[in-house]
Amino acid sequence: MMTAKLSLHPDRLFPADADTRTVARRLYAEVKDLPIISPHGHTDPSWFAGNESFANPAELLITPDHYVFRMLFSQGVSMESLGVPRADGGPVETDPRAIWRRFAEHYPLFRGTPSRLWHDWVYSEVFGLTERLTPDTADHYYDVMDDKLGQDDFRPRALFERFNIEVITTTESPLDALEHHKTIRESGWKGRVLTAYRPDPVLDPDYEGFRDNLVELGAITGEDALTWEGYLAALQNRREFFAAMGATSTDHGHPTAFTADLAPAEAKALFEKIVSGRFEPADAELFRGQMLTEMARMSVEDGLVMQLHPGSFRNHNGWAFKRFGRDKGADIPTRTDYVRALKPLLDRFGSDPKFSMIVFTLDESVYARELAPLAGHYPALKLGPAWWFHDSPEGMRRFREQTTETAGFYNTVGFNDDTRAFLSIPARHDVARRMDCGFLARLVVEHRLEEDEAHLVARALTYDLVKQAYKL
Amino acid sequence: MMTAKLSLHPDRLFPADADTRTVARRLYAEVKDLPIISPHGHTDPSWFAGNESFANPAELLITPDHYVFRMLFSQGVSMESLGVPRADGGPVETDPRAIWRRFAEHYPLFRGTPSRLWHDWVYSEVFGLTERLTPDTADHYYDVMDDKLGQDDFRPRALFERFNIEVITTTESPLDALEHHKTIRESGWKGRVLTAYRPDPVLDPDYEGFRDNLVELGAITGEDALTWEGYLAALQNRREFFAAMGATSTDHGHPTAFTADLAPAEAKALFEKIVSGRFEPADAELFRGQMLTEMARMSVEDGLVMQLHPGSFRNHNGWAFKRFGRDKGADIPTRTDYVRALKPLLDRFGSDPKFSMIVFTLDESVYARELAPLAGHYPALKLGPAWWFHDSPEGMRRFREQTTETAGFYNTVGFNDDTRAFLSIPARHDVARRMDCGFLARLVVEHRLEEDEAHLVARALTYDLVKQAYKL
Amino acid sequence: MMTAKLSLHPDRLFPADADTRTVARRLYAEVKDLPIISPHGHTDPSWFAGNESFANPAELLITPDHYVFRMLFSQGVSMESLGVPRADGGPVETDPRAIWRRFAEHYPLFRGTPSRLWHDWVYSEVFGLTERLTPDTADHYYDVMDDKLGQDDFRPRALFERFNIEVITTTESPLDALEHHKTIRESGWKGRVLTAYRPDPVLDPDYEGFRDNLVELGAITGEDALTWEGYLAALQNRREFFAAMGATSTDHGHPTAFTADLAPAEAKALFEKIVSGRFEPADAELFRGQMLTEMARMSVEDGLVMQLHPGSFRNHNGWAFKRFGRDKGADIPTRTDYVRALKPLLDRFGSDPKFSMIVFTLDESVYARELAPLAGHYPALKLGPAWWFHDSPEGMRRFREQTTETAGFYNTVGFNDDTRAFLSIPARHDVARRMDCGFLARLVVEHRLEEDEAHLVARALTYDLVKQAYKL
Repeated sequence: MMTAKLSLHPDRLFPADADTRTVARRLYAEVKDLPIISPHGHTDPSWFAGNESFANPAELLITPDHYVFRMLFSQGVSMESLGVPRADGGPVETDPRAIWRRFAEHYPLFRGTPSRLWHDWVYSEVFGLTERLTPDTADHYYDVMDDKLGQDDFRPRALFERFNIEVITTTESPLDALEHHKTIRESGWKGRVLTAYRPDPVLDPDYEGFRDNLVELGAITGEDALTWEGYLAALQNRREFFAAMGATSTDHGHPTAFTADLAPAEAKALFEKIVSGRFEPADAELFRGQMLTEMARMSVEDGLVMQLHPGSFRNHNGWAFKRFGRDKGADIPTRTDYVRALKPLLDRFGSDPKFSMIVFTLDESVYARELAPLAGHYPALKLGPAWWFHDSPEGMRRFREQTTETAGFYNTVGFNDDTRAFLSIPARHDVARRMDCGFLARLVVEHRLEEDEAHLVARALTYDLVKQAYKL
Repeated sequence: MMTAKLSLHPDRLFPADADTRTVARRLYAEVKDLPIISPHGHTDPSWFAGNESFANPAELLITPDHYVFRMLFSQGVSMESLGVPRADGGPVETDPRAIWRRFAEHYPLFRGTPSRLWHDWVYSEVFGLTERLTPDTADHYYDVMDDKLGQDDFRPRALFERFNIEVITTTESPLDALEHHKTIRESGWKGRVLTAYRPDPVLDPDYEGFRDNLVELGAITGEDALTWEGYLAALQNRREFFAAMGATSTDHGHPTAFTADLAPAEAKALFEKIVSGRFEPADAELFRGQMLTEMARMSVEDGLVMQLHPGSFRNHNGWAFKRFGRDKGADIPTRTDYVRALKPLLDRFGSDPKFSMIVFTLDESVYARELAPLAGHYPALKLGPAWWFHDSPEGMRRFREQTTETAGFYNTVGFNDDTRAFLSIPARHDVARRMDCGFLARLVVEHRLEEDEAHLVARALTYDLVKQAYKL
Repeated sequence: MMTAKLSLHPDRLFPADADTRTVARRLYAEVKDLPIISPHGHTDPSWFAGNESFANPAELLITPDHYVFRMLFSQGVSMESLGVPRADGGPVETDPRAIWRRFAEHYPLFRGTPSRLWHDWVYSEVFGLTERLTPDTADHYYDVMDDKLGQDDFRPRALFERFNIEVITTTESPLDALEHHKTIRESGWKGRVLTAYRPDPVLDPDYEGFRDNLVELGAITGEDALTWEGYLAALQNRREFFAAMGATSTDHGHPTAFTADLAPAEAKALFEKIVSGRFEPADAELFRGQMLTEMARMSVEDGLVMQLHPGSFRNHNGWAFKRFGRDKGADIPTRTDYVRALKPLLDRFGSDPKFSMIVFTLDESVYARELAPLAGHYPALKLGPAWWFHDSPEGMRRFREQTTETAGFYNTVGFNDDTRAFLSIPARHDVARRMDCGFLARLVVEHRLEEDEAHLVARALTYDLVKQAYKL
């Protein structure tokens, strides 16, 4: 039986050079224990509302995580064999232990990937496992984790506290009643779980059920959301509700960064065309662009910070979409323009001191060319961290190397984990802290920044900037 | 007379950091002597069929190598003076020693380029030269190399064996009778030289002589290749012939990665328009795209691995094209989209376990944004290595840094030399091995990968993955 | 009172690795004292003509420098409070000491940026300041600098000599009479200040006052510049005048790299359409493209080196443009194509030994993909250095890493500071020298280049190549 030690080296992710590493250690020592601020993510608020135990290792760590099953699928492992539900309800693997063994067998595929770093952290730090995950240790892993998940100190609230999370934000549609958030607030538990307003289902004419969503939005708010005025009033109404429930931000997941600033009569006419259902793709894009500017306008009024995440081609694999439905690891980044796309919105609100907008990208070629120059000029614009596929050591390094010289550190907003994989949240923040300290250490050793200043920047990147940017 | 020592340092290309270098050395020690698998290249099969001596140093190393003469041309050295034949048959330099001296005089231009690394390796390891190439040593170089090229152990087969090549693949048109490959097979020589099926001349309506090529294709196969059904049958017929001759792959050098999946009647109508000669550029592009999907369909049936090399703007220099013809170092990479381009083909075959496709790029901005996410999802898709201009130390480093975190190592396929410069093939593979070991060493020293695993990965990148991917 | 030492470390910007740093030091030692060649920039020739003292620290270092005030503006500091003049003449801060204090208060924003490196160099090396700039030291800074600026050895000519500038080039419109350059030439001062011919105001139909500029051009030259023939003659006439005044280059700041090569009758018809004022944006773009080719043609005749700087979206912030006018730090780079764009011009002149063209980019994704392959082939084409936002340590590193392997060192042209910030010119050249030596040192330590050759290359990058490329 082959076993190997699972160990998280205290110097992991620090630069190899000895002097640089020494500085990185000093910088990291002062930020590693700062509380986690997680201002943007996809954990399920019902976990914290109900505080039920997680079901089993496979259901917690494998089946819902498209980072994980996409890699196995790419190497010929069927999604059915990993328990991913089929759209037609056809049979899939239901034995969590069998799923876990299949994952363990293919764990070498993750060599060199951030998933490997996150998982090893969870195994070691959350579950106390000490041997590497292999086919031989798979059952031992399963037994230990399954047992612990049944214990009280592995319930969601206990982990939240153990992880030293100061605040975490989930993401909900305006159609959501925020019942779980209400439950959390009324429970007396001191954990701070906020919502964010994600109106894609009622802003994007191409969203499944868009028109029905508008009808529902009208019903919830008492507005006639099939008229332009009623629609805007309903959106604003729900923003107010979300804000009252603690939200400090909105989030927008558009295919592009395109914005528009139409005259009121044109915007109204466009809305009517959209609602009629007789529109072209270009109308839908124009409407999404106009609505971003409307959202910016409302942000100026209600103070919610606006996040824009463009550039993902959703559900690229037509075969898999038909067989398994949305969100099965086939979202692929596309080339994204920001300069022309954002101009209408920025012309109107980009210099307004009451507006704050955080922009993300999946297209790294825009870091130095577009986003850093834009953020280094517009008062309202800040850069979100390396995102999604780029939420990785090399991705974070490229983000700092390509944005800092033009935008500085202070036009960035700290780290977002953007994840539903709750157990790995501390690991993800730890990767960001280590990579930022490594980057700063290089600046110090190359005499581009004094070490006393690097300590201030490290703290800002870890804690201060995210609180300021998200008004937390 | 100025001379300087020519030496290949045993640590060349390894990272500067001492600890990282130590790990790189250990990793490299276990892969440096593995046989060379060269699954994609442009050596001339007649060399191995006839096993004649190479003519002289200039004809072997300078005149046919556009990597070399493009650099001299860019600095004002005329192609005529390097013996490059003119399209009009006009006079060019014919004295190989004069060409060699001219090259030697300009050898400093190659400082910092991979050509310099490859050439120095050839001089040192193949010819045993010990002084650096300068104008002063040019004649000595010429004399030594010219003399050795006349010896039996410098003939193609002897070098093949000395280079420890396990298998090498050449590239031929479906119109090629593969006579040289037949000769090799029948000769009793144990060297494994395979062909690959490269149908651009009969798939690309913009290829010179396209319609004549179809007529010839029909004549070879006994099909009426001017009808859609006969054309497809003829293509399939030649695939079968190539496979029977040992081919395991096809290769497609399209201007873009565009694919299409037309209904059969539309595809037939398009073919008829193309054959009529009355078509627009958009028709040609649509036809190329449709034919990639047809090729994928045939790959599912016959098991040939499909390679796609898009994104080169061929023969960019109109003046030089007129004066010297094709392939004179003026092919320039262009921005290339893969996400929308490949969707029709991938929707149909990307999840088919019987299909295997290897994609290359000249546009590095797609590594992290498009290709790694696609390869990290689709079972059929693998990433070809850093290619052409990017087949260089920095290019290889960027490839690993930008693809590994999303696609992992196991969705890549080892190294391709893609060259006609036979003597430099071991040097090229050696650069890849060194760069991969250096990259892995950094992961080890940064505690992102355990060293025992790095050894397995190093071997996979050098040998295992290429054999699997190309079914060799 | 908090103070910290301001120190410029002798090893600043060198790689952290000890061996590499040792080599970098040796390379740098031989180039650090070479004279400065500044072949492209925006210093004001009136400084050297009149040799008046600079007014005060704020007017010299803050108010005119959009690198500086863009960063403060991006963090909510109003341009008015920094003394930036309003378009409507409205009130702005006029107290230079107040402006200086405001800048000092926000100096931490520049951590990690090149502005910080340049400013610290100026404070330390030009003014002899020894404490770091903070709100507490702001007044001391102001007093010391204000005092020194009044001294004779801080006048422009004295600084020029102290900075060891061998030649500096300013940039003027063909409408400029070059009076200051005449004054300098006639003054007997030995400082070499040249002009460069920048015809954007008379080549770009979208330039403010384009038609009036043509009328003025006609008046200056005695040609009828509202006819095609007269226009070309007038442009040529002014080129001759500039050349006679010492210019060796032209400079073109187009929105794209698009070029055209129309038949003479088409070009004439296009000009007439443009002059009529009744043209579409596509006509303007076509005209700019045609005029680049006309400029290339004239360069072949008169030998002026042609520089092309495309890809900036000027005055992106509509609100700020209205309030403050042009050039207020809102120029944003855009994605730029070179391959198709330059083909018409290169087909005609790219292989002409009498033509020389230097191309810059704000889109780093083209370095390896487009510019290095083009420069590594066309005899006429050279690569300008990392430019504008990329004129920074990381930007310079990426430039070398992404261009060297394909274009070599000798198709690049040394460093341009491209600045109006006179006092920081030595700092900018020093950054380039250090970064180039660091890059070369890595090649040496990785055994990719011999150290004796690296010394030759370091000198070429610092001094020889720029003199050759700009015919200085």
